[in-house]
Amino acid sequence: MSSRVNIRLVQMEVRPGRPLENTEKILNRISEAKAAGRTLAVFPEMAIPGYLLGDEWERPAFLRECEACGEKIRAASAGITVMFGNVGIDWQRRNEDGRVRKYNALFIAENGGFRGPEGGPYPFVIKTLMPNYREFDDSRHFFDTRKLAAELGRDPRDLIAPVHTACGRIGAVLCEDAWDQDYAVSPLQVLGGKGVDFVVNASCSPFTFNKNNKRNRVFAEAARRLQRPLVYVNNVGIQNNGKTVFTFDGASCIYDRQGNRVETLKPFAEGVMDYTLGAELRVEVDRDLPATAGSDATSHFDAILYGTEKFMKGCGVERVVVGASGGIDSAVVAAIYRHLLPADRLLLVNMPSRFNSPTTINLARELAKNLGCGYVEIPIEDSVALTRAQVDGVDVRWPDGVKRLALTDFQLENIQARDRSSRVLATVAASFGGVFTCNANKSEMTVGYTTLYGDLGGYLANLADLWKGEVYELGRYLNETVFCRAVIPEGSFAVVPSAELSVAQAVDEGKGDPLVYPYHDKLFRSWVEDWNRATPEEILEWYLDGTLEQHLDYPGCVKDLFPSTKHFIDDVERWWNQYQGMGVAKRIQAPPVLAVKRRAFGFDHRESQMGARYTLRYEELKKRLIG
Amino acid sequence: MSSRVNIRLVQMEVRPGRPLENTEKILNRISEAKAAGRTLAVFPEMAIPGYLLGDEWERPAFLRECEACGEKIRAASAGITVMFGNVGIDWQRRNEDGRVRKYNALFIAENGGFRGPEGGPYPFVIKTLMPNYREFDDSRHFFDTRKLAAELGRDPRDLIAPVHTACGRIGAVLCEDAWDQDYAVSPLQVLGGKGVDFVVNASCSPFTFNKNNKRNRVFAEAARRLQRPLVYVNNVGIQNNGKTVFTFDGASCIYDRQGNRVETLKPFAEGVMDYTLGAELRVEVDRDLPATAGSDATSHFDAILYGTEKFMKGCGVERVVVGASGGIDSAVVAAIYRHLLPADRLLLVNMPSRFNSPTTINLARELAKNLGCGYVEIPIEDSVALTRAQVDGVDVRWPDGVKRLALTDFQLENIQARDRSSRVLATVAASFGGVFTCNANKSEMTVGYTTLYGDLGGYLANLADLWKGEVYELGRYLNETVFCRAVIPEGSFAVVPSAELSVAQAVDEGKGDPLVYPYHDKLFRSWVEDWNRATPEEILEWYLDGTLEQHLDYPGCVKDLFPSTKHFIDDVERWWNQYQGMGVAKRIQAPPVLAVKRRAFGFDHRESQMGARYTLRYEELKKRLIG
Repeated sequence: MSSRVNIRLVQMEVRPGRPLENTEKILNRISEAKAAGRTLAVFPEMAIPGYLLGDEWERPAFLRECEACGEKIRAASAGITVMFGNVGIDWQRRNEDGRVRKYNALFIAENGGFRGPEGGPYPFVIKTLMPNYREFDDSRHFFDTRKLAAELGRDPRDLIAPVHTACGRIGAVLCEDAWDQDYAVSPLQVLGGKGVDFVVNASCSPFTFNKNNKRNRVFAEAARRLQRPLVYVNNVGIQNNGKTVFTFDGASCIYDRQGNRVETLKPFAEGVMDYTLGAELRVEVDRDLPATAGSDATSHFDAILYGTEKFMKGCGVERVVVGASGGIDSAVVAAIYRHLLPADRLLLVNMPSRFNSPTTINLARELAKNLGCGYVEIPIEDSVALTRAQVDGVDVRWPDGVKRLALTDFQLENIQARDRSSRVLATVAASFGGVFTCNANKSEMTVGYTTLYGDLGGYLANLADLWKGEVYELGRYLNETVFCRAVIPEGSFAVVPSAELSVAQAVDEGKGDPLVYPYHDKLFRSWVEDWNRATPEEILEWYLDGTLEQHLDYPGCVKDLFPSTKHFIDDVERWWNQYQGMGVAKRIQAPPVLAVKRRAFGFDHRESQMGARYTLRYEELKKRLIG
Repeated sequence: MSSRVNIRLVQMEVRPGRPLENTEKILNRISEAKAAGRTLAVFPEMAIPGYLLGDEWERPAFLRECEACGEKIRAASAGITVMFGNVGIDWQRRNEDGRVRKYNALFIAENGGFRGPEGGPYPFVIKTLMPNYREFDDSRHFFDTRKLAAELGRDPRDLIAPVHTACGRIGAVLCEDAWDQDYAVSPLQVLGGKGVDFVVNASCSPFTFNKNNKRNRVFAEAARRLQRPLVYVNNVGIQNNGKTVFTFDGASCIYDRQGNRVETLKPFAEGVMDYTLGAELRVEVDRDLPATAGSDATSHFDAILYGTEKFMKGCGVERVVVGASGGIDSAVVAAIYRHLLPADRLLLVNMPSRFNSPTTINLARELAKNLGCGYVEIPIEDSVALTRAQVDGVDVRWPDGVKRLALTDFQLENIQARDRSSRVLATVAASFGGVFTCNANKSEMTVGYTTLYGDLGGYLANLADLWKGEVYELGRYLNETVFCRAVIPEGSFAVVPSAELSVAQAVDEGKGDPLVYPYHDKLFRSWVEDWNRATPEEILEWYLDGTLEQHLDYPGCVKDLFPSTKHFIDDVERWWNQYQGMGVAKRIQAPPVLAVKRRAFGFDHRESQMGARYTLRYEELKKRLIG
């Protein structure tokens, strides 16, 4: 290693599918780094193309463009070492799908040339460990070190090697390469054995609640094991896989050779950080420095605010319409948008029917007043009556005579919900020159307690990865910390959650949703978010052995919620049937979900429409419980 | 090999996520095979769990159930050799995502025990080649032979070996294992080198237009190369990945050692086929026997009819409402459902506004009459007027005063479309006790020439993998071959395709859609379906070098369609912007698409919302063309 390495970590926003734009930014950052006397500039994984691009990788024109962009960076590397992620292409070879060979690659440009790993076949580092869980599809597009080794008849460990540069022998890896606990090969261990001066991990790692804490444990341990400093560079911005939108928080940082995290870049913001590697890295701060300080709500808010803002920008959305019911979900959504938009670009619409209480209508008015945004009431009574008149009792002609259609009360509930979104909100949004929002939370989304083309409509569902209880917490956080005043009326926290679509849901009589959120949030979480997802079988097992509350992390006593075990089981089955039945059908047509935690619906938690099923073991347990 | 092997191919319907049901069927088929004196019964890949299950594989309860089902089959294998696909679980090891180790496995049960490959670590065969393209996600859930070999420090070829059974040495593989042209390892070649008596390929291979012809070439060649008979067993039924529904046609067959296809089971139907392997397989029929006879329309019809019927059954749909516009798409959809449903379960709804011509209304009436189904007209004029009155000119309160909303003509078009689907069709369907259909074709879906919550709504989009031209062909086929009379009125073929949402789309004046379907169908196909997907860059390259028509397979002359090169380029950009822009946003909220060909929208053709982009090379070409 040369005596001193002046590193610059470049935490940049990578715009997916925009190689020209990203490259221009990279070139600017390189100029700045040179001017500042830096000797090494590190950019994120896939900094040129972006990462979550769907099947964009199948377009040769896109690949050629990315390759040409990489060449520009190579040409700009006189007097500096530049590490950046890009797609590595071998036009002579094929992927297993018959398309051109592509690698998720880390390029190291220096004095106009590319430096590859010692003894490797390419002038770039290849990602070895391929995540194929959650939102990741790496193996769909990229050939990996292990497949390449098999093809060349070599050991993958031969192909993992340090890159010799002007800055020393760098152990260069990409993202998952350092998350090696469940893989047969550990790139860092191999690199450690071959001798490196320091390690660089270039990542494109989506934000997930609590992930930074885990990364700190894993990466600190890796640095300690190798006794080498570890530089971690992650991008910011958002990327999506259609159904699910992911934020990237950056949180780029350096770990010293003792595994202490020395410094961290501000999350969810572009920035650079300089660090000089000498012979020894000193410990400058406490190693327990949290990457994300504060409460769960802080973290949720930061990610949702950032993700919503970037998504709006990406779609060119400048004006937003929120259907404001007076309840907590729409109030939280409205407050978030008010934080992002001038008052004259946010419009709240209350759409009362005969079932809406003055209580909630007044809450919607109060919210609009507090936020200082636009407000209008557009009643749906006349339209619902018209639809009823056009369908209820209408005669349909059949070859063998006339048959009459009729509508039930339940059908009238859905007519109201669809009328509000597809008729009123969509029209108001178009007239306002904007979009309307989907205010669904994760609890509703899980069991499809929502109407298709009704309250499930909208351009983005930015609360749909939060359980109902987390929405309340976010509401409190907005009032107390973000706005520092009660923009969300206290009544919206106090009122019983209700769709107000029938007399059975009259809030002033304390009637509302059929969900006991503090319990059902936790029940649904075990079905959706647990790494090994639970089913009614486990729920009954745990109920039987008295560990249900502990497994669900439910602070109360489940038996207190139900008059009998049969009621408890009926409830489990009711929601399981909904989750696996209509819930799936509705999610297929739901708006994009902004991911905040593990297993956001859409492309993170992939689903098939198969209907609800119960195992034989479940049936046995049920029999044992209620005969 | 024992002197004679009495094989039974069992082409069964596998219901995804229903292990108990599938196992009961398998056990029945085993009893029947025994009674018929068969010595070997072959079932499809993943015959117990199903295959396209989303993330169902993450549920340990599901895995335990599948394993228990496999045990039942083992116990039933006295006196017969049974080959069946199931998930192979190693509860002691982990997958790379930290979850329990899972293999896509082929089990061979015999006399109450399982037989694994010679020298292998498990009593089952492991799928070696993992498809990770189109709708496949194998690497997301299953560990493969190559990873296992790396873990064990062995060569993957050591783990690929014949299974010694009472029926001889079987070269047992799963689906992709025989599609080895782009992989570094060829399981069949390895097996051939180790000596097998015959080869069995158990598959769960979705139907794709023309795929059987390719499979026949590949498998016949494999049999010929090995000089061994090859038995191919595929399932029937449908499976889905949420956004996309796939049919399975079975088409199970046997190839003799000269590569001749000896016999094929009827596609899209359950069935068994017996074959006896002696010392030599005789050629009994022509080797050019087509798996799917007839025209493209035959093939499209068979798959769509089967897929629609199974999807309805899976969702419990018994009554269907079709919005009938008088145009070809809704007419074809209605005719397909009429073929599946009694007349009293199909209801056509025409929803005229002032823009609908008597021509098309009469065509809708005629269609209903021809099909003998229910018919009703529900005008939308009053509702559209009400919506207009409630939004156009309405005053919105802002803190700094009142602002007035206004509606444009274009916004009124979308109001009509949403009114029809979300207000009328959804309500009529609920009242009728059924669902309503989405009649979109692939041309519209590609460029989002459709209204969200409007004509893009519905429970299933069963034509959405057919280009407009293919919809016309299917319409002709329905009249000429399926119904043998003109159930779809001639006028629906003749009328100009039009949304009839404004005076600019008046069909009686010959005005309609802005798409020249014979050309745009082919243009869009190059963007969506080509294996290496084209972009505007390639379109301009081809235009410049005079090969555009050839590349697109367009029989006319593209220059004849546009008054100038600028108009041609404007048109390319208009639709590319739509395809990559609002088209993606709309598809995210579209109903499930029934896949018929390569690259159905949804989970086969995965997309990210990134907006339309043009390469630098495109800009250069454009400049060269129009300065």
